[in-house]
Amino acid sequence: MSTPAQDTAILCRPIGFVRSRFHVPEGVPVQAAGVPHENASLEVLPEYAAGLRDIAGFDHLIFLTHFHLCGQEKLEVTPFLDDQVRGVFATRAPARPNRIGLSVVRLLSVDGCLLYFAGNDMVDGTPVLDIKPYVARFDAPAPGRIGWFEGRLDGLDARRADGRHVGPADTKAP
Amino acid sequence: MSTPAQDTAILCRPIGFVRSRFHVPEGVPVQAAGVPHENASLEVLPEYAAGLRDIAGFDHLIFLTHFHLCGQEKLEVTPFLDDQVRGVFATRAPARPNRIGLSVVRLLSVDGCLLYFAGNDMVDGTPVLDIKPYVARFDAPAPGRIGWFEGRLDGLDARRADGRHVGPADTKAP
Repeated sequence: MSTPAQDTAILCRPIGFVRSRFHVPEGVPVQAAGVPHENASLEVLPEYAAGLRDIAGFDHLIFLTHFHLCGQEKLEVTPFLDDQVRGVFATRAPARPNRIGLSVVRLLSVDGCLLYFAGNDMVDGTPVLDIKPYVARFDAPAPGRIGWFEGRLDGLDARRADGRHVGPADTKAP
Repeated sequence: MSTPAQDTAILCRPIGFVRSRFHVPEGVPVQAAGVPHENASLEVLPEYAAGLRDIAGFDHLIFLTHFHLCGQEKLEVTPFLDDQVRGVFATRAPARPNRIGLSVVRLLSVDGCLLYFAGNDMVDGTPVLDIKPYVARFDAPAPGRIGWFEGRLDGLDARRADGRHVGPADTKAP
């Protein structure tokens, strides 16, 4: 099996766009898990409508998105939940190579090309590159070590509890 | 917030390539969860080495990959585990718009730019677009409805148990 050339560019196109009440990155929740009742919708482009068949049968979906507002890709970042510089692949920071985001959301209803969902951590206009059905058997291994996140997730709950969802422009996700 | 034009192309580049014993799609396990002891490695390109710092602290990683051997993108597919045509976004079939794959793997060890992992469901040479730390708090909602997958996952275990990992060329994942 030949390996694609390392400089091969892979071209992606949005299949739809998120509609949410967050119009700037500041104030967007740091993770969907922290805001289970933050509702929004995904407007799938009509040419992809046929791909949505059977999707209403799933409680959770995985959205792969493009962090379109994140200008600079970095290899080292100081995550929102931390005060130390970390390798970007050990974080969920948007400022990562290829700037692809992953949000696990709860599907509320489907109306044609509109998917209504809860657990929104995305800014309005976020391009979505893929929708996958969440299947715990595939996607949820038994909890294990979570590196520097250990002990830092209580803050996420606190932010949910008191309603403060604060995130600097470039570090929406921890 | 303005929405990017719908025809905006998003350019991605591989950050590394999977090295595995599967040299053709036929025979690749249908999902990582079915082959917890199938080992392989990810060779991260040297220019991304700095992004790997702190990654050894995580038991599980999410790889976002490019289904580079999948020629045609489709909106409707008959998944490997099923005998009915489904909307592609309700499946994990590779023949999807943007052809982005998602594998949750178990990290075994890190040696420079080489990540050794278990649970490989990827063909040799698969381009990897992103590595994210798996954090159950973010990525694992309570199990819910799984649409047409319901009752069809026992077969996955059976294939693991008897060692047969059969998948047609274009439908590696269910």
